[in-house]
Amino acid sequence: MNKPARVGLIGYGYWGPNLARNFHALPDAHLVAVADADATRLDEPARLYQARTYTDYHELLADPTLDAVAISTPARTHFEIARAALERGKHVLVEKPLAMSSAEARELITLAEQKPRVLMVGHTFVYNPAVWKIRELIEQRALGDVYYIYANRVNLGRVQRDINALWSIAPHDISILLYVLGAMPLDVSARGATYLNANVEDVVFVTLTFPNQVLAHIHASWLDPSKVRQMTIVGSEKMIVYDDVDTEARLRIYDKGVYRHGSEYGEFQLKVHSGDINIPKIEMSEPLRNECAHFVECVREGKRPRTDGENGLRVVRVLEAAQESLEKNGATVPVR
Amino acid sequence: MNKPARVGLIGYGYWGPNLARNFHALPDAHLVAVADADATRLDEPARLYQARTYTDYHELLADPTLDAVAISTPARTHFEIARAALERGKHVLVEKPLAMSSAEARELITLAEQKPRVLMVGHTFVYNPAVWKIRELIEQRALGDVYYIYANRVNLGRVQRDINALWSIAPHDISILLYVLGAMPLDVSARGATYLNANVEDVVFVTLTFPNQVLAHIHASWLDPSKVRQMTIVGSEKMIVYDDVDTEARLRIYDKGVYRHGSEYGEFQLKVHSGDINIPKIEMSEPLRNECAHFVECVREGKRPRTDGENGLRVVRVLEAAQESLEKNGATVPVR
Amino acid sequence: MNKPARVGLIGYGYWGPNLARNFHALPDAHLVAVADADATRLDEPARLYQARTYTDYHELLADPTLDAVAISTPARTHFEIARAALERGKHVLVEKPLAMSSAEARELITLAEQKPRVLMVGHTFVYNPAVWKIRELIEQRALGDVYYIYANRVNLGRVQRDINALWSIAPHDISILLYVLGAMPLDVSARGATYLNANVEDVVFVTLTFPNQVLAHIHASWLDPSKVRQMTIVGSEKMIVYDDVDTEARLRIYDKGVYRHGSEYGEFQLKVHSGDINIPKIEMSEPLRNECAHFVECVREGKRPRTDGENGLRVVRVLEAAQESLEKNGATVPVR
Amino acid sequence: MNKPARVGLIGYGYWGPNLARNFHALPDAHLVAVADADATRLDEPARLYQARTYTDYHELLADPTLDAVAISTPARTHFEIARAALERGKHVLVEKPLAMSSAEARELITLAEQKPRVLMVGHTFVYNPAVWKIRELIEQRALGDVYYIYANRVNLGRVQRDINALWSIAPHDISILLYVLGAMPLDVSARGATYLNANVEDVVFVTLTFPNQVLAHIHASWLDPSKVRQMTIVGSEKMIVYDDVDTEARLRIYDKGVYRHGSEYGEFQLKVHSGDINIPKIEMSEPLRNECAHFVECVREGKRPRTDGENGLRVVRVLEAAQESLEKNGATVPVR
Repeated sequence: MNKPARVGLIGYGYWGPNLARNFHALPDAHLVAVADADATRLDEPARLYQARTYTDYHELLADPTLDAVAISTPARTHFEIARAALERGKHVLVEKPLAMSSAEARELITLAEQKPRVLMVGHTFVYNPAVWKIRELIEQRALGDVYYIYANRVNLGRVQRDINALWSIAPHDISILLYVLGAMPLDVSARGATYLNANVEDVVFVTLTFPNQVLAHIHASWLDPSKVRQMTIVGSEKMIVYDDVDTEARLRIYDKGVYRHGSEYGEFQLKVHSGDINIPKIEMSEPLRNECAHFVECVREGKRPRTDGENGLRVVRVLEAAQESLEKNGATVPVR
Repeated sequence: MNKPARVGLIGYGYWGPNLARNFHALPDAHLVAVADADATRLDEPARLYQARTYTDYHELLADPTLDAVAISTPARTHFEIARAALERGKHVLVEKPLAMSSAEARELITLAEQKPRVLMVGHTFVYNPAVWKIRELIEQRALGDVYYIYANRVNLGRVQRDINALWSIAPHDISILLYVLGAMPLDVSARGATYLNANVEDVVFVTLTFPNQVLAHIHASWLDPSKVRQMTIVGSEKMIVYDDVDTEARLRIYDKGVYRHGSEYGEFQLKVHSGDINIPKIEMSEPLRNECAHFVECVREGKRPRTDGENGLRVVRVLEAAQESLEKNGATVPVR
Repeated sequence: MNKPARVGLIGYGYWGPNLARNFHALPDAHLVAVADADATRLDEPARLYQARTYTDYHELLADPTLDAVAISTPARTHFEIARAALERGKHVLVEKPLAMSSAEARELITLAEQKPRVLMVGHTFVYNPAVWKIRELIEQRALGDVYYIYANRVNLGRVQRDINALWSIAPHDISILLYVLGAMPLDVSARGATYLNANVEDVVFVTLTFPNQVLAHIHASWLDPSKVRQMTIVGSEKMIVYDDVDTEARLRIYDKGVYRHGSEYGEFQLKVHSGDINIPKIEMSEPLRNECAHFVECVREGKRPRTDGENGLRVVRVLEAAQESLEKNGATVPVR
Repeated sequence: MNKPARVGLIGYGYWGPNLARNFHALPDAHLVAVADADATRLDEPARLYQARTYTDYHELLADPTLDAVAISTPARTHFEIARAALERGKHVLVEKPLAMSSAEARELITLAEQKPRVLMVGHTFVYNPAVWKIRELIEQRALGDVYYIYANRVNLGRVQRDINALWSIAPHDISILLYVLGAMPLDVSARGATYLNANVEDVVFVTLTFPNQVLAHIHASWLDPSKVRQMTIVGSEKMIVYDDVDTEARLRIYDKGVYRHGSEYGEFQLKVHSGDINIPKIEMSEPLRNECAHFVECVREGKRPRTDGENGLRVVRVLEAAQESLEKNGATVPVR
């Protein structure tokens, strides 16, 4: 494809405007159409981007000149809309989670392969330079053995009625964990509580066991006084605190650790060290900009996206297991 | 008792020096003796406080002029030493946890009643003015309904070989939860991992269910890059962040909340509000000073301490249930 | 004027893109043209806003359909371009400082009155809700007597070659001081140093005396490791820390103070108090958005802007006196 | 001297208790006597340290068994008491400032040389490992050229009636500057304001010019909402922020800088770089403990202290020049 990709956007609620702004700003893309069931939201994209607008997304999909669509609608509609878009032959970027079940996710993957069209999931943090740096450090074994990782992602945020904090917030941390560890968890347990809506957990605590005894823990909530976006990676030789809202110090690498130092007779000592803290310079670019650019590049050059359908499916499989644990009052559930 | 209480201290390792300094500074107490099995530790209390010193605590207990002893030895020795002290007719302040089982704790309670002597547990946070303020706000229903509470107590701290992070660190948070909620949890689940010593968890995540659907969560670890001492209390109308290492803002009270607003037809709306943050002036006194003074007052005036044996037993019962859950891979265990 | 105002922008370097984005987003304005001497900068506004573009601003001014222009060019060109725009009958928003001398500033004011056209200076902080709150608190005497104010505005920022840190950075703080105190300083002293370019101060320290013995101090620098945007207002009864980069706590109002408490015999005591800290909820809107909207409103409704030419002149008069002090090695210079 | 040094303390007000605690804890010293004109303050040292106590310091000095005295009385009494102590043949540690004039300081130096006895000034920061690290980095030219240094030392602190914020607070920063730069300033200017007591500045801003065009600036105040103890050192290649109240990150070393890169034809470019931030591990020991131990070592081994009388005199000379500038409304005054 030599021309810029012609992109349509379905869903202009909370997140859609960010996608619109980024696609509009990319030289290799044209944001030509926006659909939202709520007509009052459509004035803005019409004015800012001269986009054609629709209240029925089927009409948007009917436009044969569109190469690709981005979908930022409520999670429960992802599957249906993504399927319709693929069936119309559009390349698809769908917000996380890819779907509400692994069966649905697999159907989308199959459909995308048959057409064939690009199917990409909006796991934004996989396009975040700070997360790239963490993965690089783990791969280089700069931390020694990774012991455990915990994440806090809380806010007085958007209370959802249709999906719980697990499906709404935790996909971010799950996708980061899968990406930086390069592995799937073996099992998951989760506990949560519902305060505002029956059957919709406002807060969840998720514990995951990865290979090599790496433990991970996620706290996700939309009932919290402060906005926290933090992940701590504890290794035997170094430790990282990743704070996504600290613009001066996104990553702090602590030269700290404790490890066993064995002797020949089965005895061992604990070696503790505590040295400098390093805050590496990270050339930050807007992760969503990177994500949109990557999608456009995949569309124009026929590449497979980093967060393809398989990647989205893996996240959904973890969510499914965590949901089952939630419903079993925290029992540990294997990830199939 | 008109004279100052004559106090002996058993255990002068990590925490003992703090007890010694505080008892020495109290006008109503005399720190007259210190015992520690490691003779090299005894020069300091001899020099700083002119205390008599012993390597065998039985000799210290044999001194008939001693009114009371404080015990800050490894947790697994608390029961034996406290029992010996009570049997010698001493009033006893024992560091947390009171004992390693509820059976042991009950035996100490019974013995203290028979003598009768004061039995107090060193749950320091119950003597912390910031914790008093949290309890007061919850009692006054200033937060509306309490939804959930989570605590982080992590550090690159003292790695223990004989007890895990649950028994070593979590007693602080459990005692705070029991104190501010005025209730026992109904059930507990816990997961953790061992990295440094077989069978000794370096990190644990504990989830507790209290009456009225109040969920609580504790993260305790001695493998962490930063010292964190934080607890967040989320209510329907206000929320509190308690940061014990932030001297300017120990408590932040957020005028934030979300609550259901019902209509007559079963419908409801979610009301979200987000107002000022208030950092109340708290007249801070050193909690350990308060604790030591309270012990001396109970000894001299025959009062029952705020953190008496029953209080210590309640904490041990929660720890026992959490330990059982740890061993059952996170299964939810009722608190008996 | 019933139609949206037709706006042209001159200068698309560091700040111009922000003005463009905001004018484009305002429903009552059309950004129709952008000029910049550097042609490589003009692709972006053409693509994002479909603006006509010029490398010669005179051509932009020659467009008779333009109602107004915003000028964000180097400070030394403000006067000439603003004069040309007013002479062409355009309403003018010019970035700070209004001009490089009070004589030039007065000439622009006179010209704007003759035409008559709106002349507004881009003192953005006068459109910042946090600054409004400070002014309101001072006016209500909530702080008691204002004792002194100090500001730090430092960064490893844009090193300028044509103007020094005084003229480049300090106008922000001077405009805030004039606005919140509602008064002009009586005298000024300033010291600075040049490291990178001869005769261009990279760092300046400015001290200003306002009526009622209110002292103010400004530290401005583009050679600093951290971005700091902070102002502290010390009153006899309350004190405010305004941190423009702390999104959770832009203003902290400390219920702290010391004041003299006199007796009838000339004796007095010092009363010290230290109470709560309050972080008021401030409904934040982007100050530059407010500024642009205010300019458009003034243009369309013939209103006088809050930061009109006279306001810009007052800031220039303070800058002139500070510059004179700099050149006299810190001697105190009255503000004429 | 083989025995521990026998130390007396004169002045048990704000700072004296810290000196007492530290001398008591040193194995090579005995705190044997404490004097304070206010008898109510003397119970504590008698109880905690079994010190003999006096309300008249002359009686303390009359004790022939005392080797040394530490003086922590109001600044205006330092000269007289230090002189009396030296005349009695005692080694002397006097709190900063050494005296209220350079004439007085010189008299003490002469007297100490005649006796001869140790004369040391309590410039605590010269005994602070973080300050040692700064000096080391500057000496190694790790920062490139030092451009400028600024310090904030403010608090809602002890309002003084007899000396102003310059003499009370700024000696800390002046002693640090002299120590890390290894040089005296060439000239000083200062402005301040009096709010609470006539003729006693509650806040001062001091600007100092050091050789090689190094500019330094000090903001000292006891009227401030927050406790700030911060110094920033800006170099051409690196920059340091030293925050004495940030226990995790006392020093942040920013790999940031701007410097001129000249060509052979007199042209030059500005090279800007912005890299990692490093927080070096500093083995912290209590600076006052180090100071007291150094004094005891000098007394026992006849060594010359690092902050001897000459050092104290240099600080007083800077204070005198700054005071003269204050009285001349900020005129620049050479340091003689």
